Amino acid sequence: MTTDFSSWSNELLIRTESALEHYLPNAGNAPVRLHAAMRYAVLGGGKRIRPLLAYAAGEACETDPARVTAAACAVELIHAYSLVHDDMPCMDNDVLRRGKPTCHIEFDVATALLVGDSLQSLAFEILSARIEGIDAAQQLNMIKLLATASGSHGMAGGQAIDLDSVGASLTLPELEFMHIHKTGALIRAAVMLGANCGNSRTEAELSGLDHYAKCLGLAFQVVDDILDASASTNDLGKTAGKDAEQNKPTYVSLMGIADARLLARSLHEEAMTALDPYTHNLRLRQLADIIVQRTC
Amino acid sequence: MTTDFSSWSNELLIRTESALEHYLPNAGNAPVRLHAAMRYAVLGGGKRIRPLLAYAAGEACETDPARVTAAACAVELIHAYSLVHDDMPCMDNDVLRRGKPTCHIEFDVATALLVGDSLQSLAFEILSARIEGIDAAQQLNMIKLLATASGSHGMAGGQAIDLDSVGASLTLPELEFMHIHKTGALIRAAVMLGANCGNSRTEAELSGLDHYAKCLGLAFQVVDDILDASASTNDLGKTAGKDAEQNKPTYVSLMGIADARLLARSLHEEAMTALDPYTHNLRLRQLADIIVQRTC
Repeated sequence: MTTDFSSWSNELLIRTESALEHYLPNAGNAPVRLHAAMRYAVLGGGKRIRPLLAYAAGEACETDPARVTAAACAVELIHAYSLVHDDMPCMDNDVLRRGKPTCHIEFDVATALLVGDSLQSLAFEILSARIEGIDAAQQLNMIKLLATASGSHGMAGGQAIDLDSVGASLTLPELEFMHIHKTGALIRAAVMLGANCGNSRTEAELSGLDHYAKCLGLAFQVVDDILDASASTNDLGKTAGKDAEQNKPTYVSLMGIADARLLARSLHEEAMTALDPYTHNLRLRQLADIIVQRTC
Repeated sequence: MTTDFSSWSNELLIRTESALEHYLPNAGNAPVRLHAAMRYAVLGGGKRIRPLLAYAAGEACETDPARVTAAACAVELIHAYSLVHDDMPCMDNDVLRRGKPTCHIEFDVATALLVGDSLQSLAFEILSARIEGIDAAQQLNMIKLLATASGSHGMAGGQAIDLDSVGASLTLPELEFMHIHKTGALIRAAVMLGANCGNSRTEAELSGLDHYAKCLGLAFQVVDDILDASASTNDLGKTAGKDAEQNKPTYVSLMGIADARLLARSLHEEAMTALDPYTHNLRLRQLADIIVQRTC
């Protein structure tokens, strides 16, 4: 690593924005309203944590960022589609996202539905175009990984469990099961997709990465719950305090804010330990620090 | 062709149902409500026109049905997801589909949203698992074809144009543009996916297939409009007369039912002519007859 973390991440954030800009349909092409809404939902906001994780995992597996870009964008598009659908009136019914009106507020509910649907298709379209330096069989594996992480055994399944849990009293293991699917699956996919763009690794290295991603995904959610309970709407760019208001089980409601902070710290440490097989890379470690210490 | 059409189609319908049954998540696995709703939305109904088109195109390209099954099911899952989302209150707000309550009526709107999302993911999951006899690069092409046909430049884009057209006075070319996307894109994808499972063809053969599919897709929609205006809800298994009630532009509203029937006949003939480069196969011709002459 010859550059500091912020130079590294700034360069990759610019690369990600520019690639997303390029992949998204031109707003001048029909159907213009749908295309404008797709761009609205994806561009100009978002921490791009999943793309950064993909790039960092790619670096851990000694690959060039150029090879990772398609995967980084595909996973971000899946994330963006899930936010658009989650915000809809039939789900969380939220009006604010990334400091802006949510997609169905800025456009309309039917358009938001189609935006989500189209972003999902676009993710797979991007990941099925040939990527230089990655063989076709490997690319098929990557598509399978992303599709599985997105569907009913992954992210969408986690959403379904979340719906069923409103007003219910979950145990901690049940809450963890939900989050491993709802946010964890896509975070793991980001890391494993990035790794898949690189040179092949030993089993120990790959399972280390996977465990890192699992712990980090959970830590991410615990921190999300802490922020929802303690930060302001202004700081978050989305409505704060929604979990308590909607009577949703969270790490904070189940264990209190102090223990939730301890849990985040312990998951963070476990994620770091999982990277022990890697001696040459610290981007994933730096990213874990930032994800756990974030304030918005 | 050693068997008659109904033996051929019955065998492939059984193959399709059994494969869909196998691909869909077990309703006993968590999240059970989502998985039950996914199965409800896909199984036990549907004419399976797209899978049959894929098999027929596969036969035209001299491939074994076993090689086509994944593609046939993937395209049917995309179709099934689009029906679930189209029926939702923010779109067509329909309560009846395939003679049963629509997914959001039988379950709930949030679940229907996740069902559609998960079925789309599942389609790509299926198409990214290795298919014996098809090389990985070819499979990537197939995924790209399906993703493009599903997204904002295909089916979902057609839906968006449809939304914008309610209450508007479209010209015939505008109506055609909408349907080429809304229903046409996926019908073409079904045919081209089936062809992609087979041996490589000449340019003339492939463009013949594509033109066949384009004409058939439009004919399918013209017949749909005629049936909506003339058949009963009971015969259709979905609410009849919705187009006129919702003031939607259709071939019937734009040109009258008699001219719409003539148009369907002429598109049918054009589809047949497009198959001229093929001398050895008639399944696609038989399917076109059935699609244009259907009464429900």
